[in-house]
Amino acid sequence: MGTITAPWKQLLLNALESNSHLKHSSFFQFATVGGNGRPSNRTLVFRGFQENSDKLHINTDNRTQKIGELKHCPFAEICWYFTDSWEQFRISGTVDVIDGSNPETLKLQQREKSWFASSVKSRLQYLGPHPGLPRISEHQSEEEARLDPSIGPVAAFCLLVLDPDQVDYLDLKNNQRLKFISKLDTNGVKSWSSERVNP
Amino acid sequence: MGTITAPWKQLLLNALESNSHLKHSSFFQFATVGGNGRPSNRTLVFRGFQENSDKLHINTDNRTQKIGELKHCPFAEICWYFTDSWEQFRISGTVDVIDGSNPETLKLQQREKSWFASSVKSRLQYLGPHPGLPRISEHQSEEEARLDPSIGPVAAFCLLVLDPDQVDYLDLKNNQRLKFISKLDTNGVKSWSSERVNP
Repeated sequence: MGTITAPWKQLLLNALESNSHLKHSSFFQFATVGGNGRPSNRTLVFRGFQENSDKLHINTDNRTQKIGELKHCPFAEICWYFTDSWEQFRISGTVDVIDGSNPETLKLQQREKSWFASSVKSRLQYLGPHPGLPRISEHQSEEEARLDPSIGPVAAFCLLVLDPDQVDYLDLKNNQRLKFISKLDTNGVKSWSSERVNP
Repeated sequence: MGTITAPWKQLLLNALESNSHLKHSSFFQFATVGGNGRPSNRTLVFRGFQENSDKLHINTDNRTQKIGELKHCPFAEICWYFTDSWEQFRISGTVDVIDGSNPETLKLQQREKSWFASSVKSRLQYLGPHPGLPRISEHQSEEEARLDPSIGPVAAFCLLVLDPDQVDYLDLKNNQRLKFISKLDTNGVKSWSSERVNP
């Protein structure tokens, strides 16, 4: 018995499906806490769920500030608003930062899989100049860079895996809100409960 | 001389203009830090700039969690992605929480102005049940509530004023990124500098 699939996951898959005609339907805002104790927030791209789980995958550049922030405070909250169906998912959890130095073979394999799942064009970004640093040349063109499509992940490529422990779902068309809270049993198995709350 | 208008403000006004055909162009994600030190993130609605300034106005319900979070840690970062023009603004600053108990007359006037600037329908939300608490009745209809349009702000109505100190602008169509940083002079007057950085 028991729920294998997180109950909010099907709601999210439905929202992705009903908004799939919009390029930005896979974009969400990802909030972290900076070393100064202040919040940070930026748009990132959903790369899918980890196989047979409710963990979300995100690709990012190891040289961005969020990496240091996550090492300092491993929590994040995604806010994902679907502009056509008027649904919002707030997904709170812990983030595992997987770069090339990770000691676990399975995680390095996940990182490699994510690398090859992204387009060659998006892989080229990780060969570009250091994000956020002053722009030196006017003509740093990514098109000048070349990348062998068979080459594995470069050093800057980083996979983030968000393991959710709370999800707040808001359906603005029907004015409904559901709160999903997880708990771990003594064997470390996650289970979810849900409650209707006032919008 | 000196710059009276923040240099990023015109970029933001242009983005609002070029995306104004989209209902959600005034929606952004607003990140704060919770009492537990974890980030929170939710979609809110831009209600305009404070007169002759670069401060942003947001209306919210005094009974939501973000109020407690902002009293504990007054910093927020807005992430505002414009889905048609592919522009992102990350606006970081300090938030002033203005509810009915505020001792400053000018701030109470701003709150009252914001109340009357919102539609009667959106004012009715503040008379609804406590947001986030368990939903008790199946039929709590806001339409049943009535509100005299001439009555001033109710207790739950709260104006948030975000005073930005840093703005990160990303133009994905042209692959350009600008960082705006403010400083205060000895008279407390804010000035802005900008720098091109790598996207």
